[in-house]
Amino acid sequence: MSRDEQYMKTAIQMAGETVGQTSPNPSVGAIVIKDNELVGLGVHVKAGEAHAEVHALQMAGEKAKGAEIYVTLEPCSHYGKTPPCAKAIIDAGIKRVVIASHDPNPEVSGKGINMMREAGIEVETNVLTEEADRLNKDFFHFIQTGEPYVRLKAAMSLDGKIATSTGESQWITGKEAREDGHTYRHISDAILVGIQTVLSDDPTLTTRIEGKGNNPIRVVFDSNLRIPLSSKLIQNQEAPTWIFTGKHASKNMVQKLQDVDHIRVIQQDVDQIDIHQALQYLGEQKVTSLLVEGGGTIADAFVRAGKVEETITYIAPKLIGGKDASSPVAGKGISELKNVPDYQVVSNEQIGEDIKIVSVRRREINVYRDY
Amino acid sequence: MSRDEQYMKTAIQMAGETVGQTSPNPSVGAIVIKDNELVGLGVHVKAGEAHAEVHALQMAGEKAKGAEIYVTLEPCSHYGKTPPCAKAIIDAGIKRVVIASHDPNPEVSGKGINMMREAGIEVETNVLTEEADRLNKDFFHFIQTGEPYVRLKAAMSLDGKIATSTGESQWITGKEAREDGHTYRHISDAILVGIQTVLSDDPTLTTRIEGKGNNPIRVVFDSNLRIPLSSKLIQNQEAPTWIFTGKHASKNMVQKLQDVDHIRVIQQDVDQIDIHQALQYLGEQKVTSLLVEGGGTIADAFVRAGKVEETITYIAPKLIGGKDASSPVAGKGISELKNVPDYQVVSNEQIGEDIKIVSVRRREINVYRDY
Repeated sequence: MSRDEQYMKTAIQMAGETVGQTSPNPSVGAIVIKDNELVGLGVHVKAGEAHAEVHALQMAGEKAKGAEIYVTLEPCSHYGKTPPCAKAIIDAGIKRVVIASHDPNPEVSGKGINMMREAGIEVETNVLTEEADRLNKDFFHFIQTGEPYVRLKAAMSLDGKIATSTGESQWITGKEAREDGHTYRHISDAILVGIQTVLSDDPTLTTRIEGKGNNPIRVVFDSNLRIPLSSKLIQNQEAPTWIFTGKHASKNMVQKLQDVDHIRVIQQDVDQIDIHQALQYLGEQKVTSLLVEGGGTIADAFVRAGKVEETITYIAPKLIGGKDASSPVAGKGISELKNVPDYQVVSNEQIGEDIKIVSVRRREINVYRDY
Repeated sequence: MSRDEQYMKTAIQMAGETVGQTSPNPSVGAIVIKDNELVGLGVHVKAGEAHAEVHALQMAGEKAKGAEIYVTLEPCSHYGKTPPCAKAIIDAGIKRVVIASHDPNPEVSGKGINMMREAGIEVETNVLTEEADRLNKDFFHFIQTGEPYVRLKAAMSLDGKIATSTGESQWITGKEAREDGHTYRHISDAILVGIQTVLSDDPTLTTRIEGKGNNPIRVVFDSNLRIPLSSKLIQNQEAPTWIFTGKHASKNMVQKLQDVDHIRVIQQDVDQIDIHQALQYLGEQKVTSLLVEGGGTIADAFVRAGKVEETITYIAPKLIGGKDASSPVAGKGISELKNVPDYQVVSNEQIGEDIKIVSVRRREINVYRDY
């Protein structure tokens, strides 16, 4: 590992600790090095607050003059809630900039780099790009498509069952896997279930992890607005609940739900929820990532719509059997193998007694530009 | 790793190369060390031929006197096809014996060790026992139960499907995984499919691996003897085909099949094949290991009978979906989670684009005695 990679690795590591807290902004880390000594570091803590470079330059103070800065993401070139970081870097007298990820927005990508190069700064790009891109895949997808990055989470047995033939499902996987699963709620802006899951499990869908976890917006697809007023998603106010419904939903019920503070009803002019419309709406609301937790019909609709970008699958070493036992993706399914979306395994590990496999859609890989 | 472990590791490695060729005997390796120099080594090549210790002692010749021998399995103490190895070790003048696995047969286990200790030899046991036991789990299970060690092999998508809802199944996993799957045919004495698989896929069930693979005995469960005379298992003579059938099988058909050289019909006095009886029969025929390849109903019957000792699951990073798409274990299934057999993952790796998980039944772990 080169010196550049070593410093960048640390910056990525720092940024990684902020995953789940910066939405709708990306996670970014920056390190300032002067004469081989670390003189400043920073991360972007929260949307609306200072960017990572600003924190790092502030900490470095006068020492930034003639120093190098390592940034996990191309410094911005536009005036947003904060002035452009490329300008701050130029103003601070930095002589060399090392960058991992490029700005995912095609309209501004490369502009920060050009601005700094024109100011006479040496700019090195593509250092640990893949690792840094991975950190912000939600954000990059959101910027490029206007829709949240969709993760599908499932827990099943070695023979692909999420429940026995009589419907018993608690618990197939162990405690460690279930806890690990909760971290995906923490890093997601929203979590989705179908009405069937609400009716059968009455979940709360809050994040239960050590320390305080972020509670994602709870989204329900409920074409005919059958959600019971007594359900936990209505009664529990720890997180917003957004209910997508269709044109046949009772006006009275829509009104009743709209009157509840933490609830929002989004009525579509369709019989069955249109996934594409729903994702567009969520994107407009700055939901950068969506965790689909079930059930099988909802999962199938997302698979068939080609909207599942990442899968998180926990596999318990058990054999349950049963022609009628459910597996994680039900519905109609895809009938021809050639039309099945291909994923690439990005991690595969044992969690407690279970196996966890994470995969991402093939087209998501290496989609970012090379400068 | 100690000196003893280092030598034993090499002996286990050597023995590992003979897995699949020694049945119904175990795989065994032996190394003779004199004054810190390797002077002899051997493995058991084939049932009926010399044991590993004999080859190793022969190679060492006069140097065996006062030497140490590392053996992966307790030297035998009985006169079988060959004289007892414990005696050969004593006669050769070995001064120290290091053993990994103990003899799995409770009636003779420890006898070889005692025989050597009584002759004044220093005997060290339990060196890399777990690793050595793993090498011969088929054989140990066979010796202890009189039944073959049953492996269940399956290939499915990330959402637990072995085919699309329209039945398309070729191929879900990639070339590398399929090739890896064939190595399990090579190391199995027999391979089993249900009549449904014969009728729908007409498989040959021979081993296709680089070099020459062993072809296992092809076993079919066919309660009503519906197997077509034109099927590959009947026409192809590369391996024996044993057909288990029930009491309602046509006498004429039984006779017809019995007349074919490579075919054996085993008629049970039952309506549906009795798995326990079938395994007993296979055990009596010295079938130490059985690979169950499908389909779902057969797999379910083995799961419910509590006879699956090991699972080999290939998971392709694909999402297929479909309530009606099959998963690897069908049939009735087990309705309560508390009755579901527990396995322990023993390996988890990427093979090509796919994930391979191997797990063994919990009770199989640490079942062997400690001396």
